[in-house]
Amino acid sequence: MLLETILEMLSISSPTFSESMFTQYITDRAQKNLNPINLTEILDSIIIEFGNDPTKPHLALVGHSDVVPTHFEPYHKEGKVYGAGASDMKAGLACHYVFFKKHLPSLLKKYNISWIIYAREEGTSLEENGLTSLFTNRPDFFKSIDLAIIGEPTNNTLQLGCVGSIHAEVSIKGKASHSARPWDGKNALYEAIPFLKKISEIPANPHRIFGVTFTDVISVTTGQTHNGRTTIPDLWTCNINYRFAPIRTLDEAKNEILNVLENALEHTESIITLTDAVPAGSVIETPLFKETIKHLNQPIEAKQAWTDVAQFTSYGIPAFNFGPGLTSQAHRPDEYVPYKNLEEHIKILERIVS
Amino acid sequence: MLLETILEMLSISSPTFSESMFTQYITDRAQKNLNPINLTEILDSIIIEFGNDPTKPHLALVGHSDVVPTHFEPYHKEGKVYGAGASDMKAGLACHYVFFKKHLPSLLKKYNISWIIYAREEGTSLEENGLTSLFTNRPDFFKSIDLAIIGEPTNNTLQLGCVGSIHAEVSIKGKASHSARPWDGKNALYEAIPFLKKISEIPANPHRIFGVTFTDVISVTTGQTHNGRTTIPDLWTCNINYRFAPIRTLDEAKNEILNVLENALEHTESIITLTDAVPAGSVIETPLFKETIKHLNQPIEAKQAWTDVAQFTSYGIPAFNFGPGLTSQAHRPDEYVPYKNLEEHIKILERIVS
Repeated sequence: MLLETILEMLSISSPTFSESMFTQYITDRAQKNLNPINLTEILDSIIIEFGNDPTKPHLALVGHSDVVPTHFEPYHKEGKVYGAGASDMKAGLACHYVFFKKHLPSLLKKYNISWIIYAREEGTSLEENGLTSLFTNRPDFFKSIDLAIIGEPTNNTLQLGCVGSIHAEVSIKGKASHSARPWDGKNALYEAIPFLKKISEIPANPHRIFGVTFTDVISVTTGQTHNGRTTIPDLWTCNINYRFAPIRTLDEAKNEILNVLENALEHTESIITLTDAVPAGSVIETPLFKETIKHLNQPIEAKQAWTDVAQFTSYGIPAFNFGPGLTSQAHRPDEYVPYKNLEEHIKILERIVS
Repeated sequence: MLLETILEMLSISSPTFSESMFTQYITDRAQKNLNPINLTEILDSIIIEFGNDPTKPHLALVGHSDVVPTHFEPYHKEGKVYGAGASDMKAGLACHYVFFKKHLPSLLKKYNISWIIYAREEGTSLEENGLTSLFTNRPDFFKSIDLAIIGEPTNNTLQLGCVGSIHAEVSIKGKASHSARPWDGKNALYEAIPFLKKISEIPANPHRIFGVTFTDVISVTTGQTHNGRTTIPDLWTCNINYRFAPIRTLDEAKNEILNVLENALEHTESIITLTDAVPAGSVIETPLFKETIKHLNQPIEAKQAWTDVAQFTSYGIPAFNFGPGLTSQAHRPDEYVPYKNLEEHIKILERIVS
């Protein structure tokens, strides 16, 4: 049933902003086979609820439905299941479904359970993110969650928290002139050299917290001129990405990156714009969180990437990343997931059933 | 008549590759008012011939018909004539026409005259250039030319020769990785820093020849990454433009720039491609050349830009740049030419009539 499920999920195209068919598939399956007590759908993002016993803790399994690679027909070959979104993260969703189908009655003896499948996670802003729309529309539901397990690819390790991310655009100004007479202008690319050098020399800064290591790191990720080839460039724009450990608030991180950029730009004629910012995901160590981590009994790491763990922990909800996919396969055009990872994932999840 | 002519020429749109209407206008005017002995049209480029007395020297006035700015309705305001291509170089063509209309009978007592108006000069390769197609189709005609005056904008100074131009594309390689884990990759932008610095530090190199100064100069004119903002760039490509004095052949200049780039790139993983190259325009000092320069009696400078003077001198035909337009107005969206420059231009040309 597991192989059939992952291949079926991968056969349904669900690029970001076009998740409807997949949402319909999940909704049909859940209503037919899982007997939920409630199902909420908001713009292709769904909450499926099982159990509402106020004496039991509420455990949520969470994943996004959209995928990055261009859709291709899934197939199983030499122990690998290939398909767009195989690792990131339909493998996680397939395991959730099969796990529920097998163990929901036992699970409900111990927990209230919900399954959250949301749209528009990949490359979108927080405003567009499907999980955000669920948080906005059903705040009381989220307040009831005691622990969220996000099925993002972790190769079956437990990845705690997540680094925050801030993007800044820096524009460095020059003065245009004909390239036969560059002395009439000022080359914006050359003006950028000291800035590039200073940013490139900032070392990665590791922080040991919650028993794992998160690393602050800043990179210039893109750089463009905007002129023709016989003109001295009057403008160079670049994108800076700052990833930061969950030891600071988003506002603290914004101030920090602004200071770094202002110092690196010194007397360079330039404009800094913070274009996009998401907070780091913290680690909220409740007894249920610690107990679940202990039962799952897998290697523990920091999540050195951003995931929606940050949305949960910013609302005070304990959460961590745990999924069967391979991080290294995420977003690859020929994405796959090792089939044994799915089997193992379900075996590990079974440790919390009894 | 002069103001009417320049406004009429500017009212006819002639962007590069769409010069037909303007070509038709020139052809009609010449046939109606100038009484040519021959008119050749090849793909919107035209040769108009007056006089074929083998005892007289052959003087050609030359200009291109295409313009860079987006077409707008021309107008005359406070001594300036505004229009797309006003300075570069319909002012030159308007002066040629009015000069011929007034003085052709007197001119023909002294010279055989031809007027060459060609298409596709702006931003095109030598293969696409309309003058090239004329050279290819009428080699004997060009062999008969003793002096060519190119009406490119020079603000009524005499600009000798022209610098050559070579474009090279340099690709510097890195290794892609997620921007949260840049240590898994190699940032191509950072790899480019030593190269950018070395090129930026190469001083301009002036050469005093033929009584004027041509300057060798090399610039990085564009630079681009090709990845998304959450990826460490695996590739940075840039355009290098080398402008060089007419003291070397095109092959010598190519070897020179290749050496400069290879030295500047040292151990950087990179690819160099010479994408485009045009020779410098030399100064061929025949008695007619010297005598004409002396009669025109205007300030003499080097042409620190590329013009089709290079095509003439590479075929051994003496040529120089002399036009009423302002270099600084060339390619501006609101391009103009001072009207007095046109009046002066004709007065200066009249010095060679008698």
